[in-house]
Amino acid sequence: MTSRMLPTTKRLIDGLFNGSSSAVARTSLARSITLVESTLQRDREQAELLLDHVLEQRKAKHEGHTGDSSFRVGIAGPPGAGKSTFIETLGLSLTKKGHKVAVLAIDPSSSVTGGSILGDKTRMTYLANCPDAYVRPSPTRGTLGGVAQHTNEIVLLCEACGYDIILVESVGLGQSEIIIDDTVDTVMLLVPPAGGDELQGSKKGIMEIADVVVVNKADGELKSAAKHTAVDYMHALQLARRKEPEWKPTVKMCSAREGEGIDGVWDVLTEFRDTMNAVNKIEGKRSRQSSKWMWNQLNEELMSLAKKNRFVKDEASSLAPDLAHGFISPRSAARKLLEDFLTHPRNK
Amino acid sequence: MTSRMLPTTKRLIDGLFNGSSSAVARTSLARSITLVESTLQRDREQAELLLDHVLEQRKAKHEGHTGDSSFRVGIAGPPGAGKSTFIETLGLSLTKKGHKVAVLAIDPSSSVTGGSILGDKTRMTYLANCPDAYVRPSPTRGTLGGVAQHTNEIVLLCEACGYDIILVESVGLGQSEIIIDDTVDTVMLLVPPAGGDELQGSKKGIMEIADVVVVNKADGELKSAAKHTAVDYMHALQLARRKEPEWKPTVKMCSAREGEGIDGVWDVLTEFRDTMNAVNKIEGKRSRQSSKWMWNQLNEELMSLAKKNRFVKDEASSLAPDLAHGFISPRSAARKLLEDFLTHPRNK
Repeated sequence: MTSRMLPTTKRLIDGLFNGSSSAVARTSLARSITLVESTLQRDREQAELLLDHVLEQRKAKHEGHTGDSSFRVGIAGPPGAGKSTFIETLGLSLTKKGHKVAVLAIDPSSSVTGGSILGDKTRMTYLANCPDAYVRPSPTRGTLGGVAQHTNEIVLLCEACGYDIILVESVGLGQSEIIIDDTVDTVMLLVPPAGGDELQGSKKGIMEIADVVVVNKADGELKSAAKHTAVDYMHALQLARRKEPEWKPTVKMCSAREGEGIDGVWDVLTEFRDTMNAVNKIEGKRSRQSSKWMWNQLNEELMSLAKKNRFVKDEASSLAPDLAHGFISPRSAARKLLEDFLTHPRNK
Repeated sequence: MTSRMLPTTKRLIDGLFNGSSSAVARTSLARSITLVESTLQRDREQAELLLDHVLEQRKAKHEGHTGDSSFRVGIAGPPGAGKSTFIETLGLSLTKKGHKVAVLAIDPSSSVTGGSILGDKTRMTYLANCPDAYVRPSPTRGTLGGVAQHTNEIVLLCEACGYDIILVESVGLGQSEIIIDDTVDTVMLLVPPAGGDELQGSKKGIMEIADVVVVNKADGELKSAAKHTAVDYMHALQLARRKEPEWKPTVKMCSAREGEGIDGVWDVLTEFRDTMNAVNKIEGKRSRQSSKWMWNQLNEELMSLAKKNRFVKDEASSLAPDLAHGFISPRSAARKLLEDFLTHPRNK
């Protein structure tokens, strides 16, 4: 890649690092995220230059330090658990303690529809207006691999901009659990009070990756139901396979609406971080995550090059009739394509 | 690949094509399948030579002919639908009509456990003892990609051995639906009589890929329940998106145990084949299937080479610390690995 950084990209970097006001920094962050998420070739080149620069700064800043001061928390849970209210309450409490908080949402399950189901402007109004918080309006969408790649890069941008706590909300169901665990330091499962039946089945996948389970809405008429639910989860977690030998998954109750129990939840999350940091496991997890996305990215780029390669394309066309009739096996055909690619790896 | 065909492989080929008795041919087929499924490097080389030879013969035999005389039928359905009994009854009826029938089973859902849940010796005893049928004892297991690759190759082996009807039974749940539709010419869903509730949810995935739905066990006390179930499926299929504009998915009833309705099911399946053949869609589907597995295989081999490449491995090791600390993005790191690979594509 021989492209050069455009003046607009330079201005984004200036804004990220030297914003004279937090409003400038926030606008630059928002625009940087848009650039990173863009699929246009020109934007992708600029995004890479921007990220390279941002990460060099990160390296210079961290020189001589060990460990990392940021904390990435994933918050998953079924619709109706009160995730937005919880994040707003937790986020405001953290800014009061002097933290800078960024909130991202990922939704890999609805890559088809586009647009935001959450409404761009109305998400977490109080928190979004707080000068020490940045709330990304729309969830990051797309394919499983794409969402994960972008989310990881957006996390790095937020950290470059000084946000030390990153809350990643998992909006979609199903596959989002895989992504969230490959993106954050710890996964919290937020659930509403419910009958014991609902613990089974659909939540099993997320249970397996949850470090902390929080029963929300433990207020008013739902308080006793919340207690039962908490006990049910405690029993379920005792039976489940442990994710980390050093950590026993914990169940907490809170009322995000009334602001009760939020500090207790945060204490457990930081306890998890400290426990894992003591055995270098946060760093280890981040290392594995980055390594995984690096290989995924290499896989995507290699296949994209192979499919664009003229020699591979010509061979694939000439093999097509024999392949269709079963006169050559897909395995043999693939080996011929591989040979073409290895002989002319840089052809386009 | 410079390896040469071993005498044992030559004997397998002789057995497949020139077996003086069908017992010899069947033993050769069974051993060829075992070879194709093996993961040992030496076996894989011999498997490829064997397949190449078999497919050259196929090509020579088909020279001047158009179209293909084999018919590949996928049979999916929940446990308890009576798939084994149905396949045995259908298979015996087809051999009586002069067909040679091969029965394969795939089970991608349980790659971990190994071994056969079906019991190697007891599957479809009558059909397995019929000289014009070959029943593969164990289901093919492994990863999604591996199972599909192997199943496609085993289908080609069976056809080389003279089997003109290939019945592929999908044993596992979930992902097996994807594989079966990428392996056969038509997918049949076999269901037991059941309440309307059970049509919802879990069977939706398979409903979308089914060309024919068959309600089994339409005998004795279950006969009226079977009729209700058939009507429910007809309604459900009317609401579902059509897989092919030329074909309206059909619902049939049968009793595999009493041998009733089996001919009717087969008539619908051949009607599907004839309808699709009239617009060249069977050939088109086989072509797409082979092409898909060819690219999948290329992907696997490319990544396997990249991960073994010394320059890529060295670079990945030296990038690891910066990657772990977020000083370099996975995207940039992947681009460096790509560059290493493209510069030294043949290094191991």
